[in-house]
Amino acid sequence: MTKSWSPIHYYNTSGTFPIVLLCEHASGHFPEDFGDMGLSEEARNSHAAWDIGALDVAKGLSDRLNAPLAFCGASRLLYDCNRLPSADDSIPAKSEKFDVPGNENLNPEQKFSREKLIHDPFHCGAGGLVSAHERNMSGQIAVVTLHSFTPVYYGKERPTELGFLYHDNAVFSEAALGIETQRNVYSAAMNYPYSASDGVTHTLRQHGDDRGHHGTMIEIRNDLIATKDGADRLAEHLNKTLRTVAEVLKLGGETA
Amino acid sequence: MTKSWSPIHYYNTSGTFPIVLLCEHASGHFPEDFGDMGLSEEARNSHAAWDIGALDVAKGLSDRLNAPLAFCGASRLLYDCNRLPSADDSIPAKSEKFDVPGNENLNPEQKFSREKLIHDPFHCGAGGLVSAHERNMSGQIAVVTLHSFTPVYYGKERPTELGFLYHDNAVFSEAALGIETQRNVYSAAMNYPYSASDGVTHTLRQHGDDRGHHGTMIEIRNDLIATKDGADRLAEHLNKTLRTVAEVLKLGGETA
Repeated sequence: MTKSWSPIHYYNTSGTFPIVLLCEHASGHFPEDFGDMGLSEEARNSHAAWDIGALDVAKGLSDRLNAPLAFCGASRLLYDCNRLPSADDSIPAKSEKFDVPGNENLNPEQKFSREKLIHDPFHCGAGGLVSAHERNMSGQIAVVTLHSFTPVYYGKERPTELGFLYHDNAVFSEAALGIETQRNVYSAAMNYPYSASDGVTHTLRQHGDDRGHHGTMIEIRNDLIATKDGADRLAEHLNKTLRTVAEVLKLGGETA
Repeated sequence: MTKSWSPIHYYNTSGTFPIVLLCEHASGHFPEDFGDMGLSEEARNSHAAWDIGALDVAKGLSDRLNAPLAFCGASRLLYDCNRLPSADDSIPAKSEKFDVPGNENLNPEQKFSREKLIHDPFHCGAGGLVSAHERNMSGQIAVVTLHSFTPVYYGKERPTELGFLYHDNAVFSEAALGIETQRNVYSAAMNYPYSASDGVTHTLRQHGDDRGHHGTMIEIRNDLIATKDGADRLAEHLNKTLRTVAEVLKLGGETA
């Protein structure tokens, strides 16, 4: 007897704010079906397995903006829904700190199985939510993905607290960074700590750029949102920034 | 603050029996996002909203056969994943006993939104599970969908307890009915209480017939499986029938 699990969850699909929120690394869940993947308890609970705090911020933003959200229900160590399927790190055999024995020496057929089971329904559902929102809303919508990053990476400290990443279309990210700089509450930077050239804008590109929508990928330093209180604080903060961006970009047409 | 929900759930995806189980009408869940759809509590809990007992049998079979299962997480009154999207009853404005105000007068764009949000990720995930199982197993696999029906329909009693439905390929259904007739425990019939001409083999066709797999749609009279004990009894019974069919059809090649 196992527990059921899902590659795609929805939250607040009736939300009427002209932004769709997506969170690919929401979950550190390892369905029993996959065994322990040869990972230690430490690895399974670490940032390697999920973006600590990202889902709490995403839900907090969904509540505050009244914006729909879709998120993945399986650890990115099983399948990273924010990577191109053919990329080496879509099913990573090692992360920064941990080897992932359950991902070593998988053949192309085994990789294809994971892609079909996790990547495809996640992106089908995420794209479905964007399609539904395009139709439910008047005017333009945008796509915002929520992520977090570790304060230290390969021994190097990361002092910056917020990053806004774009794929090709930088309009939303530039507006958001401009507002953050004005507000001067958190240190923020463009394309930090990664950028499109690292292959980390797969979701934003598919559901944002490729569909003609503005969008950004928000990266939050995870020590700020590791607790529910911290996540609420960031959700409250980003709520204001995103509302201002939506005004500036005239998202949602006259009803925004 | 709403609760999250999912159009597609997996159960026992690591199962190694050469049958994929699918259950489209598993859930009577109405995500808060859709409001009460104008339905009474009675309607929301009735067979109109879900196939009573079908998920319990499906999970029981998954456990006993060690077969993977995918099921839908939203009521069929929101979207019936076992109907062609263009069919009138994919988003039914009325069922046998209840009107569904939340489905009345939807325009094509609104229907498309539901299709994208529920139908597409369900079938993407169900098809993904079939793809994965094709690759994980040696030899042929089959697809079995699990359903239940009411003992009385439009005032007419339905004395038969089990039905096996096929789309085009009748091989699995004929084998299963033959075994049931021999076992003589439950009264069983072919294409009962519906058949492909009623438009109820959308799932079986897509993931079974169209992919060259054997398969059947099992219909169980819901008074037999309305309790957990009843569902366990039917799961135990069908476990034997399906194992015998798998032997007869040589599913799974030499490893079955």
